[in-house]
Amino acid sequence: MKSYQEMTKEELLQEKEALEAAYAEIKAKGLSLDMSRGKPAAEQLDIAMDIFNVLDETSILKAENGTDLRNYGVLDGIPEAKQLIAEMVGTKPENVIVYGNSSLNIMYDQIARAEIFGLCGNTPWSKLDKVKFLCPVPGYDRHFAITEDFGIEMINIPMTEDGPDMDLVEQYVNNDATVKGIWCVPKYSNPQGIVYSDETVRRFAALKPAAADFRIFWDNAYAVHHLYDENQAEILNILEECEKAGNPDMVFQFCSTSKVSFPGAGIAALSASPANIADIKKRLTVQTIGHDKINQIRHVKYFKNMDGIKAHMKKHADIIRPKFQMVDELLKAEIGSRGIGSWVNPMGGYFISFEALEGCAKAIVEKCKEAGVVLTGAGSPFPYKKDPKDSVIRIAPTYPSADELKEAAEVFVTVVRLVSVDKLLENK
Amino acid sequence: MKSYQEMTKEELLQEKEALEAAYAEIKAKGLSLDMSRGKPAAEQLDIAMDIFNVLDETSILKAENGTDLRNYGVLDGIPEAKQLIAEMVGTKPENVIVYGNSSLNIMYDQIARAEIFGLCGNTPWSKLDKVKFLCPVPGYDRHFAITEDFGIEMINIPMTEDGPDMDLVEQYVNNDATVKGIWCVPKYSNPQGIVYSDETVRRFAALKPAAADFRIFWDNAYAVHHLYDENQAEILNILEECEKAGNPDMVFQFCSTSKVSFPGAGIAALSASPANIADIKKRLTVQTIGHDKINQIRHVKYFKNMDGIKAHMKKHADIIRPKFQMVDELLKAEIGSRGIGSWVNPMGGYFISFEALEGCAKAIVEKCKEAGVVLTGAGSPFPYKKDPKDSVIRIAPTYPSADELKEAAEVFVTVVRLVSVDKLLENK
Repeated sequence: MKSYQEMTKEELLQEKEALEAAYAEIKAKGLSLDMSRGKPAAEQLDIAMDIFNVLDETSILKAENGTDLRNYGVLDGIPEAKQLIAEMVGTKPENVIVYGNSSLNIMYDQIARAEIFGLCGNTPWSKLDKVKFLCPVPGYDRHFAITEDFGIEMINIPMTEDGPDMDLVEQYVNNDATVKGIWCVPKYSNPQGIVYSDETVRRFAALKPAAADFRIFWDNAYAVHHLYDENQAEILNILEECEKAGNPDMVFQFCSTSKVSFPGAGIAALSASPANIADIKKRLTVQTIGHDKINQIRHVKYFKNMDGIKAHMKKHADIIRPKFQMVDELLKAEIGSRGIGSWVNPMGGYFISFEALEGCAKAIVEKCKEAGVVLTGAGSPFPYKKDPKDSVIRIAPTYPSADELKEAAEVFVTVVRLVSVDKLLENK
Repeated sequence: MKSYQEMTKEELLQEKEALEAAYAEIKAKGLSLDMSRGKPAAEQLDIAMDIFNVLDETSILKAENGTDLRNYGVLDGIPEAKQLIAEMVGTKPENVIVYGNSSLNIMYDQIARAEIFGLCGNTPWSKLDKVKFLCPVPGYDRHFAITEDFGIEMINIPMTEDGPDMDLVEQYVNNDATVKGIWCVPKYSNPQGIVYSDETVRRFAALKPAAADFRIFWDNAYAVHHLYDENQAEILNILEECEKAGNPDMVFQFCSTSKVSFPGAGIAALSASPANIADIKKRLTVQTIGHDKINQIRHVKYFKNMDGIKAHMKKHADIIRPKFQMVDELLKAEIGSRGIGSWVNPMGGYFISFEALEGCAKAIVEKCKEAGVVLTGAGSPFPYKKDPKDSVIRIAPTYPSADELKEAAEVFVTVVRLVSVDKLLENK
């Protein structure tokens, strides 16, 4: 197929006419579709319903260490839940604190605590003139919303196929003491699905931060969220690598079962070095008496161990893989072939990150919306919602049904073609 | 019975000899008892076990407004949970945000948010030279721990039988703009079990704070925790009273089902004016996607409504009332009769606050510990753990079995007598 770039003005005008007719037809349908939400489909939630039937009286009454799980106490999580989480992210139970239902809330708390009290005895960030965070882009909008809320200056770091541009990361972290953190989704990154290479992880671990309280916010949100049985990504263990490199306290790792069991009714956890864990517990004990231990034991009884989690995640994959494949195939056929966009076909995670021709993202999202297809706002995957090239669009294929997704994706590719033609015509 | 104050030196010395013999006998028993913990007994937890069997597939799948409770979303709680909480504290559902499992965590967040972001557009407290909180004493140690952690200066306000000394509260709040808040447990106060009179509540509502962002932290922890079927305390509705008095935004009310269903696995909530709710939600949306909606629906299905909660709380009362009565009777017989201590016999809540002769609390706690009976640390119910008179001891009768409690209480009264005799002999 001829790429749009190769087309003459006349050819483009012809294409535009056909696409506008197609677009008018689509609009006439009065669609109401949504590809914006990184949520599991109801079908995925159905597979974990037995979690509500696993508790018998004995298991509710007592943890393995004899604790009555129905009463107050246990600040850092019950031992068997710490074990399960440790297996999930590849660390030791003593490095884990199990919280409530939201890993985002844990990240927020870590930033809030750094701002108010400081980390491990360092100056509270709120007392400093300037605090900066590095933000690999495109990235997760809710990460950026937290740092924005606290008035932390965010610096874009471009992503490569191996993770963030580490030359740039090293340059900032090792030389600028106002750089206090970096947001990372190391496995199946949100939204690109990129997996950090071993080299990238090692370079992270070997950073020589100018700031003593620089922390990597390692959001291992998709640790077990593979789409395929083969080619499952494994990343190096960041806690271990940091320890080996003499930087044991440089990382906070986050994870949850939100997209394993249920969003909102899962369990979430932080893992970090003993010094960080002690620093956190000192404050956490003022903040709460403890989290929901019954939901913790519920997860332990249901999943049992890492094998249980893997088997369960395979069921998720079987449901959502065809959706990802369908979108990928449609993009290949309609967009890739015409040279008007690029994307990584992800092996896991929850998103496809589409990169349109420069200056087209906002127009595509807008035109899709006019045709009844909601996409994540253009700019969302960037700090301050500003995509410097106006080209990235996050596609979330999981939530709609296969039929709805197909219809929405077809609208999307038509709109991408139409907006791309318009863009190319500007320079003819 | 002759009071100790009326005794001659010789009589006191005789008494001392007998008590020391009794104390030696007690010590020889090698007891290990605990009256320190404000926790429900296992027997109380047994009565709510059916809460784990109330969810059928339909109720998990959909809230009354059609929301899939298993997926992301619903920042402020599902409508039916807001309704249940509203009934429990006597407010409207639109004034309620239902959170996770811990009301303490909500209070912490309110203080943290005031410190970092400010309340309703006011200057963040962390930017001010001085922030003060009024602390009715004796009070709840975990309240004071939060304000202490944030470096907020705490000012003792004596309790009367009608609540905090309102003359003093008015004097501080209406004249000192650095006074930003007050901790209150208005119904069956922790630890005295005092119920704020209508006059007290009205005077709270009619405050004319010097600070625009002064807030009453109204911890209605024992809203439904009556010990008796008759004489159940009712307090005026603080949100309504504040609204009537032209101070709609002056109060945050907190509550939870921690001592209704399960500590750690209950639901907790805040209620406040529309302006406060909007101010909170603006920040909360950055902090989390939502709380555990399945645990919310679980509570709604189990308790159904206020009648369900009342019937359930009657079962709690039937279990713990005899414990409170036993302690009260023993104190009356052994201590009251001798004029060496006072307490309020509470009609609800979780504690008895014992006031020993001045300068005796630490010694009593210490001597009980030596004899194997753990009490809450002397000073705990005061800011900075400093009891100016060294006289208050918090007794928590609920957690031990009736037999253990009786044994512990007998040790306690013997020790109180012994320490009191020693104290009185100092001035003979």
